Amino acid sequence: MILAVTLNPALDLTYAVDALVPHTTHRVTAVTERAGGKGLNVASVLHALGEPVLATGLLGGATGDRIADLLARDGIPASFRRIAAGSRRTVAVADGLDATGFWEPGPTVTAGEWRDFVAHFRGLLPGASVAVLSGSLPPGVPVEGYATLLALATDAGVRTILDTSGEPLRAGLGGRPDLVKPNAAELAALTGDPGLDARSAADHALALGARAVVLSRGELGLLAVTPDGVFEAAPPETVAGNPTGAGDACVAALARGLAARTPWVSLVADAAALSAAAVAAPIAGVFDADAYRRWTDTTP
Amino acid sequence: MILAVTLNPALDLTYAVDALVPHTTHRVTAVTERAGGKGLNVASVLHALGEPVLATGLLGGATGDRIADLLARDGIPASFRRIAAGSRRTVAVADGLDATGFWEPGPTVTAGEWRDFVAHFRGLLPGASVAVLSGSLPPGVPVEGYATLLALATDAGVRTILDTSGEPLRAGLGGRPDLVKPNAAELAALTGDPGLDARSAADHALALGARAVVLSRGELGLLAVTPDGVFEAAPPETVAGNPTGAGDACVAALARGLAARTPWVSLVADAAALSAAAVAAPIAGVFDADAYRRWTDTTP
Repeated sequence: MILAVTLNPALDLTYAVDALVPHTTHRVTAVTERAGGKGLNVASVLHALGEPVLATGLLGGATGDRIADLLARDGIPASFRRIAAGSRRTVAVADGLDATGFWEPGPTVTAGEWRDFVAHFRGLLPGASVAVLSGSLPPGVPVEGYATLLALATDAGVRTILDTSGEPLRAGLGGRPDLVKPNAAELAALTGDPGLDARSAADHALALGARAVVLSRGELGLLAVTPDGVFEAAPPETVAGNPTGAGDACVAALARGLAARTPWVSLVADAAALSAAAVAAPIAGVFDADAYRRWTDTTP
Repeated sequence: MILAVTLNPALDLTYAVDALVPHTTHRVTAVTERAGGKGLNVASVLHALGEPVLATGLLGGATGDRIADLLARDGIPASFRRIAAGSRRTVAVADGLDATGFWEPGPTVTAGEWRDFVAHFRGLLPGASVAVLSGSLPPGVPVEGYATLLALATDAGVRTILDTSGEPLRAGLGGRPDLVKPNAAELAALTGDPGLDARSAADHALALGARAVVLSRGELGLLAVTPDGVFEAAPPETVAGNPTGAGDACVAALARGLAARTPWVSLVADAAALSAAAVAAPIAGVFDADAYRRWTDTTP
């Protein structure tokens, strides 16, 4: 089983409006609700792939109840811990031209709630082969929170993937993840040098504690710097669509590959194909299964 | 007890942002949540006045749960019926200049749920002196829904106030409310003639079934056309502030006055003062108690 951790999940609302006009009132013509947050996208993709997955993390309030309901509706196994503060929402207003986003701040997690979650996570590890830690940390979770979870997973013989940014990424690398999956901007923020070439930037992440780095570079595809060598995979096709969630699909493929001990060369190609299939689908956490099959079922 | 009916309540969210820039993503710096909808504003004002009130209506989903929690937190007595579809949200994005609003559509109410509510409403009438019916009808409730409730209330000896607009107002007048409280735009929509003088427009509403009309005219104050004569009341002062909810405070005062059988001249003056005190308060459903006391505790 792959454990997908989302400490700061969200209820993602999309509002369709005719045209966004600041300082007026809009009737929303259609509302879509989904369980959001990077780790939940990873869980959703793994579930669609038929891969055993368990979503965990923190949920609070009526918004947390709604996220749990949506996960249950989609049949995604979940074992979240409750917190007193309410989970956040995001609102994306889509007016036919583009989206305008509003991101609520995350709920504040108490020290006791964090300790409770760490114990819960430890209890889930015996059933897991891979643990994926995705997204931002809500207020109150220590910046080294991911390092704590990574160390526990590694001690339990569970392989690990970290997909976050900023200080939680920097501090998390101290927990020695088996794999990190930054994009170019996240890696530049880590090195502090946007001019650095991709390979040198990846080496910087290795020096800070990562055991392997898979750098997602959009249309340039993936660059994997690993203990077994350097691998690249271009997208199978140039895909137009929705890049949101492509990184999470990439992480889902990497997690499945780590669990199956797939060789890097196949794993990176598979992750590039699943990312492209996610770009081809209109919403995060979903991929175009036909395109993915077409790109991966070919024999030379 | 005054029964305050809200068939289409909302969870009102206010998002503070630095500046609203269409087609970008905004971090929300502060979120406020309140139980919204005109009837809940009426209930909130009556509760703050110390007047026994019971809020009723329809609530559904996790959003409905949250609305119920917020009412309980404020100590407002409530007896809502559950529906399967989720209650709506409104989002107001405040950027320091002004608000930009997004109104979700209301939940669809089934025929069985509507029948269930009508029976529930009938069961609450024996404890009520006045029933206030406020706001829009959610999809699925028949357009003559308010007329049905008004007839039941009148049969039970309960006096009634209707505060809605458009077709629900027109159809509701057939239920012969003791009082309607349109604003000038709502009354113009009813008559179809924006050029009509206020008195003639009010007479039109009387001809359609209202027993009395209290027309709210903003800074011009209130015009009451009643079986006992015509009464006017100007605001006690010109008040700058937030007009949202002033109409609901006016209705709360009118409901309290109907319950106490206050003479029209005093009742209309009190409603004008409470409306102005609501303008002086920053959020709907709240009024400036000091200003209200100053304006009403004077003796000539």
